Amino acid sequence: MSNKPKIVEVTSLGQPRFVSPLRRSIRPGEGKAAFLPDDLYVRYAVEQLGETATDEELLFQKAGPRERIYFDPAQTRAAIVTCGGLCPGLNDVIRSVFLELHMNYGVPEVLGIRYGFQGLNPRVGLPPVRLTLDMVEDIHQQGGTILGSSRGPQDISVMVDFLAAERIDILFCVGGDGTQRGAHAIAEEVRRRGLNIAIVGIPKTIDNDIPYCDRSFGVLTAVDEARKVLDCAHNESKGVRNGIGLVKLMGREAGFITAAATVASQDVNFTLVPELTFELHGEKGFLAVLRQRIIARHHAVIAVAEGAGQHLFHGLPVERDASGNIKFHDIGLLLKEEITRYFDQHGPKVEVKYIDPSYIIRSVPANTEDGALCDQFARRAVHAAMAGKTDVLIGYINTKFVHVPIAMIAGQKRRMSLEGELWASVLSATGQPQSFQ
Amino acid sequence: MSNKPKIVEVTSLGQPRFVSPLRRSIRPGEGKAAFLPDDLYVRYAVEQLGETATDEELLFQKAGPRERIYFDPAQTRAAIVTCGGLCPGLNDVIRSVFLELHMNYGVPEVLGIRYGFQGLNPRVGLPPVRLTLDMVEDIHQQGGTILGSSRGPQDISVMVDFLAAERIDILFCVGGDGTQRGAHAIAEEVRRRGLNIAIVGIPKTIDNDIPYCDRSFGVLTAVDEARKVLDCAHNESKGVRNGIGLVKLMGREAGFITAAATVASQDVNFTLVPELTFELHGEKGFLAVLRQRIIARHHAVIAVAEGAGQHLFHGLPVERDASGNIKFHDIGLLLKEEITRYFDQHGPKVEVKYIDPSYIIRSVPANTEDGALCDQFARRAVHAAMAGKTDVLIGYINTKFVHVPIAMIAGQKRRMSLEGELWASVLSATGQPQSFQ
Amino acid sequence: MSNKPKIVEVTSLGQPRFVSPLRRSIRPGEGKAAFLPDDLYVRYAVEQLGETATDEELLFQKAGPRERIYFDPAQTRAAIVTCGGLCPGLNDVIRSVFLELHMNYGVPEVLGIRYGFQGLNPRVGLPPVRLTLDMVEDIHQQGGTILGSSRGPQDISVMVDFLAAERIDILFCVGGDGTQRGAHAIAEEVRRRGLNIAIVGIPKTIDNDIPYCDRSFGVLTAVDEARKVLDCAHNESKGVRNGIGLVKLMGREAGFITAAATVASQDVNFTLVPELTFELHGEKGFLAVLRQRIIARHHAVIAVAEGAGQHLFHGLPVERDASGNIKFHDIGLLLKEEITRYFDQHGPKVEVKYIDPSYIIRSVPANTEDGALCDQFARRAVHAAMAGKTDVLIGYINTKFVHVPIAMIAGQKRRMSLEGELWASVLSATGQPQSFQ
Amino acid sequence: MSNKPKIVEVTSLGQPRFVSPLRRSIRPGEGKAAFLPDDLYVRYAVEQLGETATDEELLFQKAGPRERIYFDPAQTRAAIVTCGGLCPGLNDVIRSVFLELHMNYGVPEVLGIRYGFQGLNPRVGLPPVRLTLDMVEDIHQQGGTILGSSRGPQDISVMVDFLAAERIDILFCVGGDGTQRGAHAIAEEVRRRGLNIAIVGIPKTIDNDIPYCDRSFGVLTAVDEARKVLDCAHNESKGVRNGIGLVKLMGREAGFITAAATVASQDVNFTLVPELTFELHGEKGFLAVLRQRIIARHHAVIAVAEGAGQHLFHGLPVERDASGNIKFHDIGLLLKEEITRYFDQHGPKVEVKYIDPSYIIRSVPANTEDGALCDQFARRAVHAAMAGKTDVLIGYINTKFVHVPIAMIAGQKRRMSLEGELWASVLSATGQPQSFQ
Repeated sequence: MSNKPKIVEVTSLGQPRFVSPLRRSIRPGEGKAAFLPDDLYVRYAVEQLGETATDEELLFQKAGPRERIYFDPAQTRAAIVTCGGLCPGLNDVIRSVFLELHMNYGVPEVLGIRYGFQGLNPRVGLPPVRLTLDMVEDIHQQGGTILGSSRGPQDISVMVDFLAAERIDILFCVGGDGTQRGAHAIAEEVRRRGLNIAIVGIPKTIDNDIPYCDRSFGVLTAVDEARKVLDCAHNESKGVRNGIGLVKLMGREAGFITAAATVASQDVNFTLVPELTFELHGEKGFLAVLRQRIIARHHAVIAVAEGAGQHLFHGLPVERDASGNIKFHDIGLLLKEEITRYFDQHGPKVEVKYIDPSYIIRSVPANTEDGALCDQFARRAVHAAMAGKTDVLIGYINTKFVHVPIAMIAGQKRRMSLEGELWASVLSATGQPQSFQ
Repeated sequence: MSNKPKIVEVTSLGQPRFVSPLRRSIRPGEGKAAFLPDDLYVRYAVEQLGETATDEELLFQKAGPRERIYFDPAQTRAAIVTCGGLCPGLNDVIRSVFLELHMNYGVPEVLGIRYGFQGLNPRVGLPPVRLTLDMVEDIHQQGGTILGSSRGPQDISVMVDFLAAERIDILFCVGGDGTQRGAHAIAEEVRRRGLNIAIVGIPKTIDNDIPYCDRSFGVLTAVDEARKVLDCAHNESKGVRNGIGLVKLMGREAGFITAAATVASQDVNFTLVPELTFELHGEKGFLAVLRQRIIARHHAVIAVAEGAGQHLFHGLPVERDASGNIKFHDIGLLLKEEITRYFDQHGPKVEVKYIDPSYIIRSVPANTEDGALCDQFARRAVHAAMAGKTDVLIGYINTKFVHVPIAMIAGQKRRMSLEGELWASVLSATGQPQSFQ
Repeated sequence: MSNKPKIVEVTSLGQPRFVSPLRRSIRPGEGKAAFLPDDLYVRYAVEQLGETATDEELLFQKAGPRERIYFDPAQTRAAIVTCGGLCPGLNDVIRSVFLELHMNYGVPEVLGIRYGFQGLNPRVGLPPVRLTLDMVEDIHQQGGTILGSSRGPQDISVMVDFLAAERIDILFCVGGDGTQRGAHAIAEEVRRRGLNIAIVGIPKTIDNDIPYCDRSFGVLTAVDEARKVLDCAHNESKGVRNGIGLVKLMGREAGFITAAATVASQDVNFTLVPELTFELHGEKGFLAVLRQRIIARHHAVIAVAEGAGQHLFHGLPVERDASGNIKFHDIGLLLKEEITRYFDQHGPKVEVKYIDPSYIIRSVPANTEDGALCDQFARRAVHAAMAGKTDVLIGYINTKFVHVPIAMIAGQKRRMSLEGELWASVLSATGQPQSFQ
Repeated sequence: MSNKPKIVEVTSLGQPRFVSPLRRSIRPGEGKAAFLPDDLYVRYAVEQLGETATDEELLFQKAGPRERIYFDPAQTRAAIVTCGGLCPGLNDVIRSVFLELHMNYGVPEVLGIRYGFQGLNPRVGLPPVRLTLDMVEDIHQQGGTILGSSRGPQDISVMVDFLAAERIDILFCVGGDGTQRGAHAIAEEVRRRGLNIAIVGIPKTIDNDIPYCDRSFGVLTAVDEARKVLDCAHNESKGVRNGIGLVKLMGREAGFITAAATVASQDVNFTLVPELTFELHGEKGFLAVLRQRIIARHHAVIAVAEGAGQHLFHGLPVERDASGNIKFHDIGLLLKEEITRYFDQHGPKVEVKYIDPSYIIRSVPANTEDGALCDQFARRAVHAAMAGKTDVLIGYINTKFVHVPIAMIAGQKRRMSLEGELWASVLSATGQPQSFQ
């Protein structure tokens, strides 16, 4: 509290030159939806111990419509691209970006880039589609992305050539860490060439691990689906004597989904996340604790995040996917094998039912909450772009949407604090010990 | 039509000696729910070509409450056992058997046998629980089985000893082919010893392959869940260039679920079932046809029943599970590998997303239709048992419930006719060729 | 069984002149999906008491693809119209009719008639739309009808003029009793004028009351939704001391939905249907029985079909809606008032929560089972029309689809037998007495 | 930012005397779930315009487990009461309060008070039930409240007598504004008598209108259900020519649910909330704007909060319910009538489909998000009570749970700002004007 919080600066293409066509009040305080000034900030740190903030003291610019905008809507050509793996809500984002641009700002042409960054590389031969009202009207009720997606980067220079050649003024990049790194590189190349193209990121991370984004779209839907799977595992585990339901959930470096699904389900007995180092063997190791539970209650449910326990694969070779992400060793299969071997040896006889629902979760339509969240991210991204902000990502902190410079999140991962609210709830709900070692 | 249909005889413990406590009209035709006479029959064959029936000409006794019953409700002790893998609706069946016995007939004690036939073997050490209204009240909203289940047989003689020792008058056996074989063996041993114990089967088969049972409980729920997974596979397949969604569904020897889910989903392009012999390779083989589709449309969804294409594993050793069922080779993984290899060789590059949702489907609660069906099976099983019918299974033909001697279904599997309504609908919906060879 | 069943004759436009383009086997018995001959029949009566059938002994022609067809697909122009109130599955039917005609038969043009029969009257000014693959691709996931609907008839002669002027060869009429009366009148006028236009009906009745149609589309979805509402009523009734949840469901003259939802829900205590005459007052009247329940258990759930208890409004004037249907007096409101008054007088104090979910149920998307059923009705309607059948409705008996002359159902309503399977299940599930008088 | 934020003081029964049995780290910063110190605060105001906070500068004590507690778990007797109308999640709260007390703290006895405050008045004759693990195990999957509820107050003195006589140490009051006023009065009477009874409130408001509680449990579930109903209204409105779907949603003084459901649905054209004053008549009145929409698009969906437009009833008498809440005039029915009359007069002919889903929404089970939220509120209420906090409510601000003195919220209602994020999203999604006057 003692320190003056630091204002996080956002890059602009230049001075806004046009009056926004949106019907908003120009004066806050009149009790009407209003344009927001650039000096309206949202504080990042809200917790303090005594007089000391427990988090970075930052002020982010609040996202929202500006009274004066940089682009002339009637002359603007915008494009949107979706990258990486599927995530519930992609279609909702596409739809709301289109609707806000087209219906509210009056932008005549919005392009959909096909199959991720590949669609920005003309050599791949996948030209953009021109979005229409008919095309997007009902897509928010469908999972997947109508534009298609792909993993991995393309040559930055080629993509900027394409943007310039196609006279695209605004590019919305919907994607995760890798995508935003790409978006940032595009923005830098655009700046280097002195082009007036706004690059605005919309965070997509089913793992919920992008910094300055308390909740990204698709996460609640994923938790919803994960909970159903945990319920199934619970039923399977109780359906036989000494049944063990083992579910591998999303979460490469952050256990948010696994933890939230645990708390929602209330039927999980052990939750293993990347943030938690645990041992399998030994007196206080996971397997011994699991065995105590089986002997006492004759069934157990385990939820494990895909990124958990990677230290157990120590010494094995590291592989990477097309996006450059490390390919994780399969902790689910490892646990299944180790559990089976352990109980074969120590008894009693158990039956392990292993469920890996990944694709089923990623491809469902956004649920109600995520539908609303997508709409809010998307429209604020449009406001930012129309106002000429660039190299910026829409963040979401303390229930407010803010502008975050993309560079600020690049290579950073938000992780779940084992000292935080969510993990405390996991411990309460599972009754599991603080550590397995 | 020319032949006189044959009446299917049902075994009884003896002459009914008591008046049913149910409030039903004793005279049909009065416009009130009535007791059914034993000579009310349901015809099995309903289709005829010209004047010739295309199916067996059988008359089954209609299931339902009888005016006179064999057991004195106040003195009756009943038990229920659930066997084999999970299937949506088990709890609904347990609940309705209990409620009909206890609330409507006034049977004081209904036992729940724990973990399948294991619970009838006292050496295993899992004594039955006494069911109560509180215990069962809301269980129809949960998947799984509150009694637990297990696979595999137990010694018949030991189980009959147990029934006799526990003075159990009625045993309801909820299970599939193997379970009903066990039930039949118990009924025969009971008869040999001159005991008065009614053994009544309730068919449980998520594959829907029990004869004289057009629809068994859990099947529609499974189709429901399978459809959702197919929708996911559809979204995944369209989410990338040349994406292939591959879903393995239930169906060891019958393709009912895979076919029905295909028709419901309307997004499947290829449906492979055990009844259909297909080749992978060759000019008209599956892989070549799939490639044509990918080249033309850039995505495809394949639904394959677990029992399909077992001829492709010719020469591999045969294993069996605890129930004595042949362990199937994994057609899903085989297809995934073969598709990947084929396209690696012939192009274009594809991405195969393989989904195996088995546990997720088996363990959900019964949907509305199955809830109602379970209730109807269960209460008719109670009527049959109270009337002294034994060695009998509740069947369901032409929308009516009937009594089927268990021996009549033992070792028989109902299969989906490739000439029938459902497969024709699959061909219409997928547009796939009649054969892949 | 003694009588020879009567074959139900179906009208044809004339001798089929073209070879079907569908890839089906021409010989049944080869284990492949085959064309069906006209002399393949489905028997209606399946139940018999001793040797006497308990139902009409009729043989219906089985619906399905014919080897030879009447219309040349390349020259055919078809149209589809949806009439009356919303029902889950209308879009599924539109979609599958289009797909079967266009993709499988190769019919180039399929028109969608706007807003029911109004769209066949050019004076109303709502020209048909030409359906496309893009337009229908995902509509089965939406409730309502993309064509719109309306109630009430239009001038028959004007509509036939329109069909002739637009050179429409086939008209599919999706609707209930009134719509099918209209379809029949159109077919007769077509015949009178010597035109070659096939009129094929697809039964739409959320009340499930069209004869020779064991289950019409939308019904299971309605039961599904109704069950959820009954669960809500159950929770509301238990949420307060002496709470009464009262739910009015669909069912003008038939209680199928109310009964089926009761059996599925298992939480209803009283089910009132049009087929059941009941008294409110008197010692055995409904109110006295309800009061006993409240005193004993302190809550109750009542499911009442909208057409139940109309005799209680004796003496009040009769009104009709645009379709000519009698407007029912509101039994839900009457019950609410009478219950409140009765308990005010006799005690204890109760709280009545009245729920009327009609619109919410009619407008949801078809569930899985209904999706599959719609597809099957629709494609068989196309097969019938292409083969030149006319003045015919697709029926569904004993799990088979058949051709039913429209005249045979006109003015007839299927009602739920109080002696049948479903009502017996209601009595078991509710424990209510056979009558309230 | 210039002002030093004010710390909000919380009342305690006294110095904590016992060591918490919870397995938490005693030192924050060790990367383990830890006990929280009393001087850990959460800042309420996070937004600032330039250097000026736009909201109250308050610091709330963070809720969570304390290392030292006031009550000796083994000697503690706790009770929980649920009051007012149903809200999704009540059972989840009951369950988690029980589980945290019983399983984690080891409190032997937890009582469930029956039917709201009535159960604290022994003259009503509804003694508490003793909660058990069996009783609560699966209740989070059910809507309603297993304890029952009621509206309205009871004599404070009588209730405190009861608490004292029953030797209850902790009372959890789950309810809205009225309930918390009661809880505060009880806490004051307890203090006056010098008793050591902790009174802890858990906010229950389906309208989401309790101050210092950004999201209360049940709200997201309500939005979820409301969205489904809006989808239905959309389908109904498009199903006929000039159809108008009109849905009345919850929201007596705050439009949160109506607004959020609008944004989630994306198919609403007009959203009317209590915070917005609007005129029906006149050139810019609601009816004229609606008519423009109907003429242009031939269908419309209106979502209206129950508390909207109460000024239109000016002059009518005011009634109150048992809880003392003003009974609102039915804006839904008024709109239906006014719309019908207006279009009858000005044309075109419209069809209004009015849906009032209140009970259906309130009584469903909590969805995934609310399930998790309930658990978090409940366990933090237990931590607060065990630590001896009293006269305190669990609040939820900026994604953190905090202690709020009950007196601070009494008689206050949180309202949706028309200048805020949510209403801006409504305007974007509906395209409606800022005002109708």
